[in-house]
Amino acid sequence: MTSIGLAVIGAGYWGPNLVRNAMATPELRLEWLCDLDEDRAKAVLGRYTTVRPTTSVEQVLADPAVDAVAIATPARTHFDLVQAALNAGKHVLVEKPLTPTYAEGAKLVALAEEKDRVLMLDHTFCYTPVVRRIRDLIASGELGDVQFVDSVRINLGLIQPDVDVLWDLAPHDLSILDFVLPEGVSPLAVAAHSSDPIGAGRPCLAYLTLWLSSGAIAHVHVNWLSPTKIRTTVIGGSRRTIVWDDVNPAQRLAVYDRGVDLSTAGADERRAALISYRTGDVVVPALPEREALRGVMSEFAASIKERRAPLTDGRSGLRVLALLEAAGQSIQNDGQRIDLGGPIR
Amino acid sequence: MTSIGLAVIGAGYWGPNLVRNAMATPELRLEWLCDLDEDRAKAVLGRYTTVRPTTSVEQVLADPAVDAVAIATPARTHFDLVQAALNAGKHVLVEKPLTPTYAEGAKLVALAEEKDRVLMLDHTFCYTPVVRRIRDLIASGELGDVQFVDSVRINLGLIQPDVDVLWDLAPHDLSILDFVLPEGVSPLAVAAHSSDPIGAGRPCLAYLTLWLSSGAIAHVHVNWLSPTKIRTTVIGGSRRTIVWDDVNPAQRLAVYDRGVDLSTAGADERRAALISYRTGDVVVPALPEREALRGVMSEFAASIKERRAPLTDGRSGLRVLALLEAAGQSIQNDGQRIDLGGPIR
Amino acid sequence: MTSIGLAVIGAGYWGPNLVRNAMATPELRLEWLCDLDEDRAKAVLGRYTTVRPTTSVEQVLADPAVDAVAIATPARTHFDLVQAALNAGKHVLVEKPLTPTYAEGAKLVALAEEKDRVLMLDHTFCYTPVVRRIRDLIASGELGDVQFVDSVRINLGLIQPDVDVLWDLAPHDLSILDFVLPEGVSPLAVAAHSSDPIGAGRPCLAYLTLWLSSGAIAHVHVNWLSPTKIRTTVIGGSRRTIVWDDVNPAQRLAVYDRGVDLSTAGADERRAALISYRTGDVVVPALPEREALRGVMSEFAASIKERRAPLTDGRSGLRVLALLEAAGQSIQNDGQRIDLGGPIR
Amino acid sequence: MTSIGLAVIGAGYWGPNLVRNAMATPELRLEWLCDLDEDRAKAVLGRYTTVRPTTSVEQVLADPAVDAVAIATPARTHFDLVQAALNAGKHVLVEKPLTPTYAEGAKLVALAEEKDRVLMLDHTFCYTPVVRRIRDLIASGELGDVQFVDSVRINLGLIQPDVDVLWDLAPHDLSILDFVLPEGVSPLAVAAHSSDPIGAGRPCLAYLTLWLSSGAIAHVHVNWLSPTKIRTTVIGGSRRTIVWDDVNPAQRLAVYDRGVDLSTAGADERRAALISYRTGDVVVPALPEREALRGVMSEFAASIKERRAPLTDGRSGLRVLALLEAAGQSIQNDGQRIDLGGPIR
Repeated sequence: MTSIGLAVIGAGYWGPNLVRNAMATPELRLEWLCDLDEDRAKAVLGRYTTVRPTTSVEQVLADPAVDAVAIATPARTHFDLVQAALNAGKHVLVEKPLTPTYAEGAKLVALAEEKDRVLMLDHTFCYTPVVRRIRDLIASGELGDVQFVDSVRINLGLIQPDVDVLWDLAPHDLSILDFVLPEGVSPLAVAAHSSDPIGAGRPCLAYLTLWLSSGAIAHVHVNWLSPTKIRTTVIGGSRRTIVWDDVNPAQRLAVYDRGVDLSTAGADERRAALISYRTGDVVVPALPEREALRGVMSEFAASIKERRAPLTDGRSGLRVLALLEAAGQSIQNDGQRIDLGGPIR
Repeated sequence: MTSIGLAVIGAGYWGPNLVRNAMATPELRLEWLCDLDEDRAKAVLGRYTTVRPTTSVEQVLADPAVDAVAIATPARTHFDLVQAALNAGKHVLVEKPLTPTYAEGAKLVALAEEKDRVLMLDHTFCYTPVVRRIRDLIASGELGDVQFVDSVRINLGLIQPDVDVLWDLAPHDLSILDFVLPEGVSPLAVAAHSSDPIGAGRPCLAYLTLWLSSGAIAHVHVNWLSPTKIRTTVIGGSRRTIVWDDVNPAQRLAVYDRGVDLSTAGADERRAALISYRTGDVVVPALPEREALRGVMSEFAASIKERRAPLTDGRSGLRVLALLEAAGQSIQNDGQRIDLGGPIR
Repeated sequence: MTSIGLAVIGAGYWGPNLVRNAMATPELRLEWLCDLDEDRAKAVLGRYTTVRPTTSVEQVLADPAVDAVAIATPARTHFDLVQAALNAGKHVLVEKPLTPTYAEGAKLVALAEEKDRVLMLDHTFCYTPVVRRIRDLIASGELGDVQFVDSVRINLGLIQPDVDVLWDLAPHDLSILDFVLPEGVSPLAVAAHSSDPIGAGRPCLAYLTLWLSSGAIAHVHVNWLSPTKIRTTVIGGSRRTIVWDDVNPAQRLAVYDRGVDLSTAGADERRAALISYRTGDVVVPALPEREALRGVMSEFAASIKERRAPLTDGRSGLRVLALLEAAGQSIQNDGQRIDLGGPIR
Repeated sequence: MTSIGLAVIGAGYWGPNLVRNAMATPELRLEWLCDLDEDRAKAVLGRYTTVRPTTSVEQVLADPAVDAVAIATPARTHFDLVQAALNAGKHVLVEKPLTPTYAEGAKLVALAEEKDRVLMLDHTFCYTPVVRRIRDLIASGELGDVQFVDSVRINLGLIQPDVDVLWDLAPHDLSILDFVLPEGVSPLAVAAHSSDPIGAGRPCLAYLTLWLSSGAIAHVHVNWLSPTKIRTTVIGGSRRTIVWDDVNPAQRLAVYDRGVDLSTAGADERRAALISYRTGDVVVPALPEREALRGVMSEFAASIKERRAPLTDGRSGLRVLALLEAAGQSIQNDGQRIDLGGPIR
C-alpha cells in the first residue's frame, strides 16, 4: 500500500477541516467527500479540486480505492456509519463522541477488533503540542503527584439540536484528562450539575466533578452562554503546577515552580507550622505552532500502516462515553455522586 | 456625639487595614488597638502614633470613650467578643465569617436587636465600586434576568489553622451574591465538593453549586493551591452579561451586549431555528479607584449616627453562614444536594 | 466578462495566501500560479488542484484567458513584472512596496493610467474590519482632531536579503496612516533613526517621526529583533482616543472616552487651571472576523468590473514610497528632518 | 549616632510617600514635615501623629535633631533648598530632576562633596526588585551585549505647570538606563522630537533617541495624553532579551531565550544564510514584592551611616540632566542630533 485512499463523510462544521488536513497529509490520498447535501460538499471542495463529491455512502464504501473513512457527521449517525464502514473493511476515524451511548460504542470497538481494522477517535486536542507537553511533564514526574485538575471551557457556543453542552464540549476535557493522567490514575466517580437558563430544551452550562483513584479531584466547567471565551486548565502538582491558557498564544503553557509544601513530620507537631510556600520562577516552554488535525491525520495513517492501535483508539472513546453517561445520570439524580465501579476499561 | 470613639480588636493579618482606614475616616476617632500580643499591636501602630495599644479587651469595653469596636480576630473568638461588646453597649463591626455556626450567629443578631446596637459585617467587597455597579446593573434591569453566576477565587493562599478554604474564601463570593441578587431571588439548595490533596487536614479547594429560586445556578470555585491568581466572576443575563476580572485593573468590569436569544414562538417550530446570537459592543465602565474598606468604615459610622441597619448587617452575615453550613453538610454527604427549606432569613 | 481570469505570480511567503483567497472569490477565476521554481508552485497548489503551475511569465501574459495578475515576488522584480503585465493589457495587484524607488513607481502609475488598467496595491491592513472602523471613527468626527499617532510593530522578524526593516514593515503603518488620516491632513516632513545591532548589513530596527500638516506628530517603531510581538497603534483625538492592539483578538479595538481637555479661555488666566480630565467609559466595538485578503480580492475584482480606481490604488503606493525614501535620506543624514515639499501626490 | 533624624520637605504629590516610608524605616527618625501650606502638612500627617508639621524650612534646618532632609518640592525650588540644607550640614535626598539645569546641579554636587554630605537622588525605580534584577542580568553577562533598549512610559498624566513631559517622565527612563547599562557603555548623542497637540504650552509627548557608545540605540517614548497606561521596556541582548511590563504584576519581567543569531562566517558567503533564530523558553523570574521607596530610604540611611556615596548619587542626577538638556536642545533644532562630547561625567 503506497498511499491510503480516504473518504471524508460529512461536510458540515468540522468536515472541511478534515478535508484540508487530509489533503496536506502525504500518506493519505483523498478520494471522496460525501454529504447528503451535494451542494454543500461541492462548496467545501471548491471550484478547483480533483476530489469527487458524492451523496452516497454506499458508493464510497463499495469503492476499493477507499481504504479508510473519516466521519464528521452528527453523533446520532455514528453507530450506523462506523458499523457499515468496518463491515466494508474500512479503517475509521470518527469525531467525538464515538456514539450517543456506551453500549453502542462498545459494540463498535468489539467489531473493529473482530475485523482487525483501526478505529480512531478524533480527540484533536491530544495532538496539540501543548497537550503533548503536559502529558510529558506528568509522565516524567516533573509535575509530581497530580493534586487537582480544573478545566474551564466557556464561550458563546452554538446551541445544537441534538446534543447538550456536556456532550458537545466536555469530551474535549475528558479526552485530554484521559490522555494526560499518569498510568494507574483514573476516575472512580462522577457528579454533575447543569442548567438551561434560556429554555433551550437541554443543558447549556454544566459542572462536572470527577473523583480520581489517586484521591485527587478533577473539575470541568463547560458553558455555551459566556460572551467571553475562557479555555484554561490548571493542573496542580506536588512539584510544579501547570496553567494552560489556550486563548493566549503568547503564553499558552506556563509551568509554575510555586506551591504549598507540607512536611510529614511528627503527628504531635502543629500542622500549620509545617507548611511552606515555594515562590520560584515560571517557565513558559517554547512550543511549536502546529495544527493539531495534521497530527491526527498522520497518526491515523501511521496506525493503519503499522497495524497498531492509534494513540486515541476506540477504547479512549469508550472511557469518555462512560464518564458522560455517569454525568448524565448524576444530573438526573440531583447531582448525586455516581460510582463507576472501578477503573473504566 | 461629635465623633465616634472606636477600638480595633486584633492586630493580625487584617487589623492593620482596619486601623489605617479608621484613622482616615473623619467620623471615627480611633482610641485603642487591642491584641493579646502587645508588641504586635505596637508594631502595627508604629513609632509615631497617639493611638494606645492594649492587651485588655476588658479595658477597651469599659472605656466610655469607646462607642464602637471593630473585630478582626480568628472566627472562633467572634462569639465571645461580639457578645461582650454588645453587652457593654458597643456597636460592632466584625470580620467574616460572623461566627463558626449559624446558631451562634443568630444569637448575636438577636442580642444586637435587643440592645439596639449596630452589628455590621465587614463584607468588604460589597463596598467596592465594581460590586456597587454590578448591583445597580442588575437592579436597574439592564442585565435582564440573571441566568447564571460563575465565580472563581483561586490563589496561593495561606493554609489556616482553624478554617478551611470554604470558610476562608467563599464568604466573599456568597456575600457578594447576597448583595447583588435582585429582590426575591435567593438560594434554595446547595451542593459542594472539596479536596485536601496536600494532607493539610482540611479542604484546600472546593466547588459550590447553589440553586437559586429563579431556577438559575450559581457556582463558586475556591482554591488555596493555585499558583496563579484568578478572581473572575461572570454573571450571565438575558440582556447583558458581566465579566468582572478583579486582577485586571485596566478592565475590571466589562459589560457584554452579547448572548444567545431564544424566541418563544410556536411549539411545533424547531427550537434551533429560533436561537439567535447577539454580538454587540463591550462597554468597560469608568469606575472610581477607591479603597473598599474606606466605604466600610463610612457605612459603619453612618449607620451608627443614623440609627439604622448597615448595608451589610448581621442578617447578611447569617445568610452566608446558612450557606456555608449547608455546603459543609453536603461535603459530609458525598456532595448530596442540601435543601435550605425556603429562602434564608 | 462573467468572471475575471487571474494569474498569481510568486509562490513564496505571501503567494499561497493570494492563491487561497483568489480561489475563494467568486468574481475571480484562478488560471495560473507562476514561479521560477515549478516545484514550489506545485507544492503550493497541492495534489488536488485544477489550477496550472508554470515557470513562464510570458506564457501567463500571453494567455488571453488571463485578465489580471497578482504579483507577490521580491520588490526588486516589481518594476519589470508590473510593466510587462500592464503592457500586455493586464490589470495588476502588487505587493507592497510598489517598487524600490519613487521614480520607478511613478512610471508604473503613469503607465497604468495610459493603458487604462487597474493598478492596485495589496495594502492588506486597509481591508481589515478594524482599520475600516478606525477610518470611519476619524472621518465621522467621532474622534475629534487627530492629536497624535503612535504605531509599534515589533516582532522576531525574518531578516530579509534585499530589504531593511523600514521597507519591510513600515509600509504597513504608512499605508494605514495614509488610509485613515482625514481629508486634508498629510505628512509634511520625516525624520528617522535606525540601527543594525546584529551586523545584518541593513537596519533591523527603526524609528520614524512624521510631522503632519495639522501640526500633529505620527511616530512608527518597527523592529525585527523583539522576541515578543507587539502591534499596537494609539490614535489620540480631541474627543476620543483609539487603542488598536492587533495581537489581542478579544479586544482588538478600544475607543476611550478619556483624555485631557484644555479650555481656550482668556490668555492671562493660568493654563493649568483650565485643563480637565475626562475618565469616561471604554467601548470595545463588535467587529466582524473576516480575512483581510478576501476584501483585497473583492476590491480588485470590483474595481476591474466597475472600471474605477481601487481603494488602495497606485498613488497610495507612491505616497508610501515618498515617505520611505525620505526616511532613508534622514537616516543617511544623522536623523535630519527631511521636508517633503508639500503634500505628496 | 543611633538613629538619623529626618525632615521631609514638601507635602504635595510625592511627599506623603516619603513620610510613610521614612516612618517605616527603623534607621530613620522622622522629626518634621515641612510645607508652605501647614494645613496640607497636617492633613498628610493625620490626626494621630507625633510628627510635627511646620511651614519654616529655617526652623527645620536649624534643628540639631535633624541630620538629613528629604525634599519633594517642585524642581524650580530644588537648588535653593538643597544648597541651604547642605550649608546647614544636612544630608539630602532629593526628588528628580535634581535641578532645572545641569549647571545648577553641578554646583550642588560640588557643594555636597565640599561639605562631605550625602547627596542622593530619589531615582525610585532603581530600587525596585525588577530593575535590580535587570541590572544583574546585564552585569552578569546573561543578556549578552545590549543590542537595543526601547522604553515606553505613557499614561493620562497630570499636565504640570512648570515642567514638560520630558522633564516629568523621562528622568525615570534615563535614570534606569544609567543604572543598568554595563560598565563602559554610555550615551554619546541625543535626538528628540516632541509635540503639544492640546495647546498646553509645553510638550505633552516626546520621543528620545540615544546613541550609545557601544553602537546600540536606546529609545524612549513619554506621553501624557494616552488614555491607556503602557510602561514597557524591552532590552534586546545578544544572548537573551528582557521584556519588563510594569503594569502586569503577574509577569512583570520576562527573560526570553529568543532572538536572531548571525554567524560571522566568510565574507563571501551570503549573509542571509547565516542568520538563525532561537525560539527557546521564556522564564518569568520570581521577584519579591517590595515597595521601592522603602529601599530608597534604607539606602539613604545606609549611605549616611557608612559615610559612602549612595547607589543613586548626585552624579547620577547630573548625567540625567545632561541628557535632558541635550534633548531640549535637539527639540529646539528640529530634531538635530546633539553630541554630548564624550561620556557624561
